[in-house]
Amino acid sequence: MRPSSETEGEPPVSHSLAARWRAATVLLALMAIPALAAEGGKRDSGPSDEQVAAELRDAALAGQNMAWDWVSELATRYGPRPAGSDSERQAAEWAAGRLKALGFANVHIETFPLTAWVRGTESAQIVAPVVQPLVAAALGESPPTPAGGVEGEVVIFPTLDDLKNAPAGSLTGKIAFVSARMVRTQDGAGYGVVVAARGAGPGEAARRGAVAFMLRSVGTDSNRIAHTGTTAYVDGRVPLPAFAISGPDADQIERLAALGEKVRVRFFSTASYVKDAHSQNVVADVPGRAHPEEIVLLGAHLDSWDQGTGAIDDGTGTAIIAAAAELIREIPRHPPRRTVRVVLFGSEEVAQPVAPFGAFGGHSYVDNHKAELPAHVLAGESDFGSDRIYRLALPAGVMKSAFATTAMRVLEPIGVLPSHQPAGEGGTDIGPAVAAGVPVFELFQDGSRYFDIHHTADDTLDKIDREQLDQNVAAWAALVWLAADGDVDFRAPPAAPAPPAAPAPPAAPPARAPR
Amino acid sequence: MRPSSETEGEPPVSHSLAARWRAATVLLALMAIPALAAEGGKRDSGPSDEQVAAELRDAALAGQNMAWDWVSELATRYGPRPAGSDSERQAAEWAAGRLKALGFANVHIETFPLTAWVRGTESAQIVAPVVQPLVAAALGESPPTPAGGVEGEVVIFPTLDDLKNAPAGSLTGKIAFVSARMVRTQDGAGYGVVVAARGAGPGEAARRGAVAFMLRSVGTDSNRIAHTGTTAYVDGRVPLPAFAISGPDADQIERLAALGEKVRVRFFSTASYVKDAHSQNVVADVPGRAHPEEIVLLGAHLDSWDQGTGAIDDGTGTAIIAAAAELIREIPRHPPRRTVRVVLFGSEEVAQPVAPFGAFGGHSYVDNHKAELPAHVLAGESDFGSDRIYRLALPAGVMKSAFATTAMRVLEPIGVLPSHQPAGEGGTDIGPAVAAGVPVFELFQDGSRYFDIHHTADDTLDKIDREQLDQNVAAWAALVWLAADGDVDFRAPPAAPAPPAAPAPPAAPPARAPR
Repeated sequence: MRPSSETEGEPPVSHSLAARWRAATVLLALMAIPALAAEGGKRDSGPSDEQVAAELRDAALAGQNMAWDWVSELATRYGPRPAGSDSERQAAEWAAGRLKALGFANVHIETFPLTAWVRGTESAQIVAPVVQPLVAAALGESPPTPAGGVEGEVVIFPTLDDLKNAPAGSLTGKIAFVSARMVRTQDGAGYGVVVAARGAGPGEAARRGAVAFMLRSVGTDSNRIAHTGTTAYVDGRVPLPAFAISGPDADQIERLAALGEKVRVRFFSTASYVKDAHSQNVVADVPGRAHPEEIVLLGAHLDSWDQGTGAIDDGTGTAIIAAAAELIREIPRHPPRRTVRVVLFGSEEVAQPVAPFGAFGGHSYVDNHKAELPAHVLAGESDFGSDRIYRLALPAGVMKSAFATTAMRVLEPIGVLPSHQPAGEGGTDIGPAVAAGVPVFELFQDGSRYFDIHHTADDTLDKIDREQLDQNVAAWAALVWLAADGDVDFRAPPAAPAPPAAPAPPAAPPARAPR
Repeated sequence: MRPSSETEGEPPVSHSLAARWRAATVLLALMAIPALAAEGGKRDSGPSDEQVAAELRDAALAGQNMAWDWVSELATRYGPRPAGSDSERQAAEWAAGRLKALGFANVHIETFPLTAWVRGTESAQIVAPVVQPLVAAALGESPPTPAGGVEGEVVIFPTLDDLKNAPAGSLTGKIAFVSARMVRTQDGAGYGVVVAARGAGPGEAARRGAVAFMLRSVGTDSNRIAHTGTTAYVDGRVPLPAFAISGPDADQIERLAALGEKVRVRFFSTASYVKDAHSQNVVADVPGRAHPEEIVLLGAHLDSWDQGTGAIDDGTGTAIIAAAAELIREIPRHPPRRTVRVVLFGSEEVAQPVAPFGAFGGHSYVDNHKAELPAHVLAGESDFGSDRIYRLALPAGVMKSAFATTAMRVLEPIGVLPSHQPAGEGGTDIGPAVAAGVPVFELFQDGSRYFDIHHTADDTLDKIDREQLDQNVAAWAALVWLAADGDVDFRAPPAAPAPPAAPAPPAAPPARAPR
């Protein structure tokens, strides 16, 4: 909301950040040969979109450090940023201040209410056959235990389905334990297989009489660190105290059971809820020069789980999209034809019942920007850590277009392959917008090590590979430039399959717009 | 104390362990060609010592799994085994039962008193500039905080020397933080450089008026897991509440300070002491056939820190020496000439003032076995994790002997090199025996990743590489066999350096026995 010159009130670091960027801009401006196009959108004979995209890509790879500086200051100053917390709000104010200082337009914060969940004191032990400490974390949104804790014999279920097959009443007074192990894959496919137990487990256990639910952490590491995450509501609440235990603790319980021991576990938690909390989205634009009403939406989330510092989930996502947009704002000789909008969402890590996605920030954005949604030409979300991008998925209608060909020419040199599938739902934050018809692209990141630290205390800055982080910025800046400076209709239906040799009637359009 | 046939009272697993070993023994006995020598020590024309050592080595590498089964059951059944705790005592009883069941002689437990230290509830936070949780662990032996916790501004000292250079009174009301970072090396040399701060830091901080002491965990990992360990006593007590924080937490505080922030931290701990606790050593022998009074001593410790499960520190040490001795008991056609003694020490992880080593178990052993010490021909200790052995150090007097040549012929094929330095002090547990004149050998393990998990909650079974564990057993079994079945005097003085060309007087013996 403030012009970029009004930076007197900002902390000194924002000055240095902005100053460094201004210096970089001057340097690059000196290198710029073609004249800046005047208003109105028609360019003179400057470099092609592809040349500018390559220039953005290479600038990102040249070690500008903006993404690193952003995520480093965010995670250091504010640490964990749980949805609805003071630190989430302070981080949003900081981010808005930085974006204003850099020169973004339309920078503002959009607040919305939610019930916050607050981790309390918690502990877990094996109490029989011998007392041993467990490393556990209450699942987000799960209720506290009774003041004296909750204790029971552990019943091990290798999968959620095994728990679902247990008879009614068979878990009375017991603790249900789903011990399924996540498989490490590059695309994170192992997550979906086991995370269902985190969502549905407490409800299934409660229906069978259990006093608590526990699961092996949904993660791929072998550290004594538990992976939290939300659980599903049943009739408006999480029905049971629910915990994740670390992988080695799950192994220990399985081995004790294999030795023929009956294992009893005790949990204690003083988790609580804050009914009148607020969260917020931060919005910032690089206004389009020709069609400012057309928006390319870049999303990531500012909130984080409460035990780590939200460095890779999703501090780096916010850093990647902010840095990519800033490069687009600064480096080309002219603004893009369309508006590039950065939205730093609040309260992504929340699963209170908000159909159909559970993304408070995403729903709030759609509610606030309903009228603009038809002019959202494309959206993408960065929320899978900080490792390199290896694949690009585009909306079905442009998969075989000149746009795709150009994009791949710019991205293949930095290790990005084309996906043979169209982009999916994009992510939690932009999910409600995508559900409302906004086309989506996906820049898939290498998730091989993402689930080692996802949703844990170990989500800290030291886990970021700065070279891979810059590669993300490069891919985002180049692709978003191509989308924003062109006039491609990403809502276009997919091309009809090539007709057989014999003449055929024209293909019918698909029943619904691709998304 | 019970003969090996009295196993009726043992849990079923010990049966299966013993049965598996008996089966392996039968198999190997069928392969044995030479006749077993009669009593008295002179062998018939059976295989050479070197051939038997190679046979032991190869049997260990053949996947017998004894070491794994031992450490797995130990760490699973009893979990953490802090000095003086019930679980340490139960683990000692379990180990003695296993050794008896396997057929060891003279199996008994030697109890001794100590004051136990018990971790309580503890927590740590950055309280300014913003509240952030810290991952911290009270240092062993350190006193509790006041009931309301202890809070102060953090003063960062890059090294212990920097803290020592701070003026008297300069830390009044503050928290001293030594932030030195451990260097990763194969031989663990980085540990000694920084661990001095853990020992001396609380005393130095207290002398300057500090209210608490903290240090960056002495470790090489980058996980949100703190490394505990003991601190030095000053006038009979640890003078201040003292904590290790995880590496990423140390980074966070350093970055906040670099942003110009004054960082305030709050610690809370209800640690306590148990004055009338007891610990114990477990002793078990493979009696020598010719000189049973001559003892080759193998040591490791059964106690562990309280947050992990003592898998690599030092469950694997106890497993390695027990498995090596069991192979020596079972596989050769005859017992060794000398006795092989396994001692599983208690209370190694303790630094209460017991001059000069602080090893309660080691001192108790020397006190109880004073008369036998002159007949302890050699001692070795396994207490550096479970990764492969890469170097052998022998007493100075045998470094260039036929014994060394034979040992290296057996060990080089499994990746062990000779050390060009004589063995040092051997380790904490055998330290008092070595100080009393017992010669020592050292089988150096690859410690490259040892300090990632040393003294942490992460010391769990999954960190053990079973192949490398077996290589340890192979090296121990082979070397100990060579020492126990021979008649080498390891107290022999080193050979005189080769005389110059001119005749020289006979070399004088060294002023003291090498150790």
